[in-house]
Amino acid sequence: MSESSFFSDLLASIAQQGRRLLGPAPEAPRASGLDALRLECEALLESTGEASRIAVARSVLDHWAASGEEVRAAFFLVLRQDFGPDRERLAKAVEAWGAAPTPESEAALHEAAEPRRQELIRRLALAPDGMAGLMRMREALLRLLPVNRSLKVVDDDFAHLFSSWFNRGFLVLRPIDWTTPANVLEKIIRYEAVHEIRDWEELRRRLEPPDRRCFAFFHPRLVDEPLIFVEVALTQSMPESVAEVLDPGREPIRAEEAGAAVFYSISNCQDGLRGVSFGNFLIKQVVEDLRRDLPRSRPFVTLSPVPGFAEWLSGELADPASDTLAAEDRETLAALEDRGWMDDEPKAEALRPALARACAIYLVHARNRRGQPADPVARFHLGNGARLERVNVMADRSPRAERQAHGMMVNYLYELDEIEQNHEAYAARGKVAASTSVKRLARRPKAAEKETEAAR
Amino acid sequence: MSESSFFSDLLASIAQQGRRLLGPAPEAPRASGLDALRLECEALLESTGEASRIAVARSVLDHWAASGEEVRAAFFLVLRQDFGPDRERLAKAVEAWGAAPTPESEAALHEAAEPRRQELIRRLALAPDGMAGLMRMREALLRLLPVNRSLKVVDDDFAHLFSSWFNRGFLVLRPIDWTTPANVLEKIIRYEAVHEIRDWEELRRRLEPPDRRCFAFFHPRLVDEPLIFVEVALTQSMPESVAEVLDPGREPIRAEEAGAAVFYSISNCQDGLRGVSFGNFLIKQVVEDLRRDLPRSRPFVTLSPVPGFAEWLSGELADPASDTLAAEDRETLAALEDRGWMDDEPKAEALRPALARACAIYLVHARNRRGQPADPVARFHLGNGARLERVNVMADRSPRAERQAHGMMVNYLYELDEIEQNHEAYAARGKVAASTSVKRLARRPKAAEKETEAAR
Amino acid sequence: MSESSFFSDLLASIAQQGRRLLGPAPEAPRASGLDALRLECEALLESTGEASRIAVARSVLDHWAASGEEVRAAFFLVLRQDFGPDRERLAKAVEAWGAAPTPESEAALHEAAEPRRQELIRRLALAPDGMAGLMRMREALLRLLPVNRSLKVVDDDFAHLFSSWFNRGFLVLRPIDWTTPANVLEKIIRYEAVHEIRDWEELRRRLEPPDRRCFAFFHPRLVDEPLIFVEVALTQSMPESVAEVLDPGREPIRAEEAGAAVFYSISNCQDGLRGVSFGNFLIKQVVEDLRRDLPRSRPFVTLSPVPGFAEWLSGELADPASDTLAAEDRETLAALEDRGWMDDEPKAEALRPALARACAIYLVHARNRRGQPADPVARFHLGNGARLERVNVMADRSPRAERQAHGMMVNYLYELDEIEQNHEAYAARGKVAASTSVKRLARRPKAAEKETEAAR
Amino acid sequence: MSESSFFSDLLASIAQQGRRLLGPAPEAPRASGLDALRLECEALLESTGEASRIAVARSVLDHWAASGEEVRAAFFLVLRQDFGPDRERLAKAVEAWGAAPTPESEAALHEAAEPRRQELIRRLALAPDGMAGLMRMREALLRLLPVNRSLKVVDDDFAHLFSSWFNRGFLVLRPIDWTTPANVLEKIIRYEAVHEIRDWEELRRRLEPPDRRCFAFFHPRLVDEPLIFVEVALTQSMPESVAEVLDPGREPIRAEEAGAAVFYSISNCQDGLRGVSFGNFLIKQVVEDLRRDLPRSRPFVTLSPVPGFAEWLSGELADPASDTLAAEDRETLAALEDRGWMDDEPKAEALRPALARACAIYLVHARNRRGQPADPVARFHLGNGARLERVNVMADRSPRAERQAHGMMVNYLYELDEIEQNHEAYAARGKVAASTSVKRLARRPKAAEKETEAAR
Repeated sequence: MSESSFFSDLLASIAQQGRRLLGPAPEAPRASGLDALRLECEALLESTGEASRIAVARSVLDHWAASGEEVRAAFFLVLRQDFGPDRERLAKAVEAWGAAPTPESEAALHEAAEPRRQELIRRLALAPDGMAGLMRMREALLRLLPVNRSLKVVDDDFAHLFSSWFNRGFLVLRPIDWTTPANVLEKIIRYEAVHEIRDWEELRRRLEPPDRRCFAFFHPRLVDEPLIFVEVALTQSMPESVAEVLDPGREPIRAEEAGAAVFYSISNCQDGLRGVSFGNFLIKQVVEDLRRDLPRSRPFVTLSPVPGFAEWLSGELADPASDTLAAEDRETLAALEDRGWMDDEPKAEALRPALARACAIYLVHARNRRGQPADPVARFHLGNGARLERVNVMADRSPRAERQAHGMMVNYLYELDEIEQNHEAYAARGKVAASTSVKRLARRPKAAEKETEAAR
Repeated sequence: MSESSFFSDLLASIAQQGRRLLGPAPEAPRASGLDALRLECEALLESTGEASRIAVARSVLDHWAASGEEVRAAFFLVLRQDFGPDRERLAKAVEAWGAAPTPESEAALHEAAEPRRQELIRRLALAPDGMAGLMRMREALLRLLPVNRSLKVVDDDFAHLFSSWFNRGFLVLRPIDWTTPANVLEKIIRYEAVHEIRDWEELRRRLEPPDRRCFAFFHPRLVDEPLIFVEVALTQSMPESVAEVLDPGREPIRAEEAGAAVFYSISNCQDGLRGVSFGNFLIKQVVEDLRRDLPRSRPFVTLSPVPGFAEWLSGELADPASDTLAAEDRETLAALEDRGWMDDEPKAEALRPALARACAIYLVHARNRRGQPADPVARFHLGNGARLERVNVMADRSPRAERQAHGMMVNYLYELDEIEQNHEAYAARGKVAASTSVKRLARRPKAAEKETEAAR
Repeated sequence: MSESSFFSDLLASIAQQGRRLLGPAPEAPRASGLDALRLECEALLESTGEASRIAVARSVLDHWAASGEEVRAAFFLVLRQDFGPDRERLAKAVEAWGAAPTPESEAALHEAAEPRRQELIRRLALAPDGMAGLMRMREALLRLLPVNRSLKVVDDDFAHLFSSWFNRGFLVLRPIDWTTPANVLEKIIRYEAVHEIRDWEELRRRLEPPDRRCFAFFHPRLVDEPLIFVEVALTQSMPESVAEVLDPGREPIRAEEAGAAVFYSISNCQDGLRGVSFGNFLIKQVVEDLRRDLPRSRPFVTLSPVPGFAEWLSGELADPASDTLAAEDRETLAALEDRGWMDDEPKAEALRPALARACAIYLVHARNRRGQPADPVARFHLGNGARLERVNVMADRSPRAERQAHGMMVNYLYELDEIEQNHEAYAARGKVAASTSVKRLARRPKAAEKETEAAR
Repeated sequence: MSESSFFSDLLASIAQQGRRLLGPAPEAPRASGLDALRLECEALLESTGEASRIAVARSVLDHWAASGEEVRAAFFLVLRQDFGPDRERLAKAVEAWGAAPTPESEAALHEAAEPRRQELIRRLALAPDGMAGLMRMREALLRLLPVNRSLKVVDDDFAHLFSSWFNRGFLVLRPIDWTTPANVLEKIIRYEAVHEIRDWEELRRRLEPPDRRCFAFFHPRLVDEPLIFVEVALTQSMPESVAEVLDPGREPIRAEEAGAAVFYSISNCQDGLRGVSFGNFLIKQVVEDLRRDLPRSRPFVTLSPVPGFAEWLSGELADPASDTLAAEDRETLAALEDRGWMDDEPKAEALRPALARACAIYLVHARNRRGQPADPVARFHLGNGARLERVNVMADRSPRAERQAHGMMVNYLYELDEIEQNHEAYAARGKVAASTSVKRLARRPKAAEKETEAAR
């Protein structure tokens, strides 16, 4: 019941010492060549004095940051090539293990096989803002990866260490509202990835009214930087379109009147943390916090994009052999080619049922190469244990949503009693949880026919 | 200049969520047999759902804690035996690497060689108070280690992961004073390892007067638990005895009048963190904080025990072949056998110079098997870059100090301009930094004779 | 839903600036004579510069504190005599008002009649720890009041200004628990006025178990000083004796199992705030906080002393004319004279019903000169809107309770739906709210006889 | 040295309880007539139950706020007329005092003369946001005062109570920066009264760079509302114009390089607190904080407007009899009539010396009816103990500054060693502290002539 404010202060010091150690803005470091960087990295691995270690770590990060594109990229190749394990030592460890495979020789082998860049990254993290510096470094690395797959071993080391440092125990959920510091709020504006926030007034409209909430995860070593955040709207009922939620002219309702809590935007903020997943913790913890805050039970739903729908659909329509969609619907959906169909009511109304069916089929049945649902947002929410609750036609009229999803949006429902069980069924058997109505929409034409026949 | 109180609150949540997740005190878990524990550990490694993972982790820790000595010990052997790497996979990785030693095959080898218990420990850490549970586990392991060296591979994995989680970036220095919460203060009483704190009144005498300071390191995942702390006295001059510092009847001085800041007690609190060293960070950061707090420059010294002196001396005296001590001093020091010599002033005065010389020789010249200074406290401070400043005869009259060090204590001096350089000289060449007067005392008899001759 | 941590920090500054302004402990001021004090007070009223005003205020408070008993007492007489209103000005204001009684002349009269000591007290409050200094001053004044009633006009001015500064809007309720700073906890030990707290271990037993709570009011200008606090026990049912609550060997229950929340000790901490009442706010706010914390509804009761009972009873028994008690009970109660009756079970059992009746009669019917209930604790709780729920025989075996109340204690019940209405009935008509069973016990013998007759 | 975070939390509760008590936004109260308001006020004065008292207080404030202009204004007349002292009681008290003028009868007279509206205001303050409500009420009252002087007695009561509640001990200085909560920052934008802040980007330019500071005073009962704030620029030297300070393209300097700390904008935020002066505390405390923050000594100066200069000068120029200005300067200054003279360099240069002299004369010699310096900003800074350091021609080219001061600005210098002494000389003898150069500029023509003669 009581909070230890002592501990609160205690922890604040992490940030303060972070800021203090940063010291006065240093003079801009001059770029240094690749060889200089390599030498500094070697020096860092050899240094023993703590002060000098921190100084060298800072210097490596500063020099790397000040370098040009080319040197930066070459640096990663150096990490791959020259900062692997000590080969001689590794050969000996393999030999010893071959001679006698004991727990001790296994441990020695594991240690000998560790690439030296892992220790290098650990030591870089000791620089005052080392964590942020490593984050920038990995962002650059991730941009290079598609064109240079050989860097994957380097990226794996970053990913491994980030997973360890950003494990759940260190994440902190914080409400974001109009009393949040401006330096954090400006990052909410910058990082919002789903429904753009144009200015401070729009931000205020998303945070200040009594029927709006926002939550973000933070980490003690990344001062003032949200990792991921979710925006929540309390609404009278499960919304059908984003306009309902974001309409600037709408009348706020009182939290007590809310019939649903809608997660309408989830944004990852740090590209450098790719592969370190926070979204499911975030949603679960927000659900838990909201339940405490809003005692009356009400459904937690999302209003989510369907980013892969349009591409999938165009593939289907282009493939004459496909029988995924009913022939009739294929014909109707051709009208999607017409620019501006959304504003042409008769056309739009004609498309409505076919779109709903196609989208339901896409979400329930389409699979990627690994046999998972094709839609990435669906994978995320289904993986969290949510249920596909409803597909909404013409729910987002923004150009992006039109391009990616013909304006479709989906409500996923987080039914607390089902979450774990949905998650397990999805994880074990790839089962897609869906409401009866979505299941009905998603019946494939053949199955539907058969059922119809059977019903005769 | 401004502190982000937002961030402070943010971080407080770590502790609060820790406390909340702990939930109501669960019913005491019943012990479960070794096989049950093993099965749970396997289940933990296989689990995918986050909620179930946390629940299983908690269950493993609870069951282990509720088990008897025997099962607990056997559990570590299971970790050694059954939670090493997957041998088949490792063999294949070794083969692949042998065929083509690329960065990729190295990385695969490293991964394959990782003992499964490392991932197990990582997952146990996800339980709400997992970090504390793992700490208790390692304490038990460390107690078994002397009699069962085969557990060292298991302990190495604990040590490796603790080093990563308790790295410096997460440590928080906090002043401890009379406004500190009682639940933290009671731990200061409990963990004080150098000069016992008998009760709350004695604690108050160490914290409340204007010439006393105390600082501790904390970690966000170990709620309300100091990791290490140091007690500091502001004194008029470098003290010669512990009585000067702890005398309950002394008159406090004002901080501004202080001529020296004395670190008179440093205590590690968590046995489970053995091998993860905080002491040097602690001292450096405290020095930095005190300098900001007490702007006038003054020396930072310790008043430290010499725990290995008596044992070393008795070895020397017992070895007729040793010429470490002057013959004359050997004779004089025989009087140390007399009980109560300290209270017999003539005897004590006679011993004084011989004791000082012997102690200086011990600290400057005695070496352990690894060639480092024999005294562990000396290793610590010299390794931090401090200088042996003065040896003090009859400085601590407690039974322990008499037994371990014939009552000797030492002042180590932290001279800020010299620290880094002393540290490097010590690390690279084992050089013991000492004041002129200690060096003179530590001259070995032969050298001294020669010098005396030369001086004639 | 979100807390403004900015504001939290903001307010912390009050305390910090308080501490900072206090500066280093000043040299002990020398006492100065009465004339010097008077001159300083005049200087304070005339000073205009802010810095000098603060300095003089501090000096007055320091000098007064350093003075001997005699000068301190004489100082209050000076306040009475020489720091009343300016008489000439007052006479003129009265005259002007007499000539034309307008709002303006009334205001001028009010201003002219203000004793100069009010402004003096206001200015003394500006000293860094002025509020604490004034508190000490009034404590001294209150000790003199019984022997020197002429000081009442001076005390009224203190009381008036304290009421204004300590108004409810500035009071802060804080939970006190084992994570509370030691400097606050030591004051809980010191100020506990009902059931003595002997040492830190006993304090811990009152704060740490999951079925214990404590709350205190604080004020921003009295750093680290509780004003009033209440100790609460969560128990299975309404307790009959203090031993049940304070038994060191009892097994704590979980908060969820609690059947009652018992306010078993309420202590005012600052004598200097006499007449400024916080108790009713405290209880109401604690009830509100506990209801939020312990959602299931449960009764809030007290276990309260009956400090005036023994004295009242001895008066009754000594008055042969009194028919307040039944003749039979008068006889029985004579046995209270026997030392150690509580430990003599037959005697005790014989006394039990008579004691219960006498105590109920005392609480329900006995009145002081102002027509209010005679018992001060009863006045407090009844005035807050509580109901006399049960009288408990041999409920507190401490010497004090035996002396003051023959071991009796009372449960007052705070029934939320009745509070306001009980309060109004008590305030307007002096009505004592009591349970049916207490009412039955409290029937006066005659009424009881009549009723008995009527029932025949 | 250590901060009591306990106390910090403690105080935060004031705000939180404030917010909580506010409860959910109540339904908009309907206006009620004047008679209803009067009756509610009488009820408030008679109420005894705490809960009902708070409810009635809230109701009065809500009803007043919901009333139309006319009723609001009439309400103040009711306060004047019907909520003065009880006249009968006052007459008796006067009589008693006349008969025997003792401290007791004086005190009784003072009490009897207190207008009932003072107690009414005290009770209104108990409503959850009562302080803010009273603030709005006084703002309305102050707007009526110029046209209805009879309301002054009512306003005096507001002023008296606000002075008591907003006394220095409760004020909290807080740095305002880019990590300050947005809900506070938007008020900085709104209340800036000297150099308008157009949007969030401009706000950021005033808060975020390393050479900018801002500080505000807050009060525990006015949640999230700054009372007064000052904006500070660290500059290389004492600035001559506002453009130097606010130029968006300027290169920030490092705090360590700063040669001066410039207070370039001070804004009072709460009209309702008129007459309760914070400015001098603010400046003194900010100076003290900055000195701690920026250890190297440097001058603290202002860059201040001269709001009364233009009006005074036009009076002088219009009065042919005045010899305040030299005849030559009078002629030159006529050119101020030409629109756009500032952009006409020859004209501007010709005016420069005459303007400087006229402005210096205005500041040093011009007096208002009470014999104080005519310029209100000069009164403020001189009253604080600052010194007139330099007058700057064409320092602010904004339309307002041109209109009020022909573009002039002044630097006042806060020389710490002189402040108290300047203040005393100003308070006691109206002495205007000025630099030698300003004094020279301010020499009146005759005096100058005489001096010139004398020098011959």
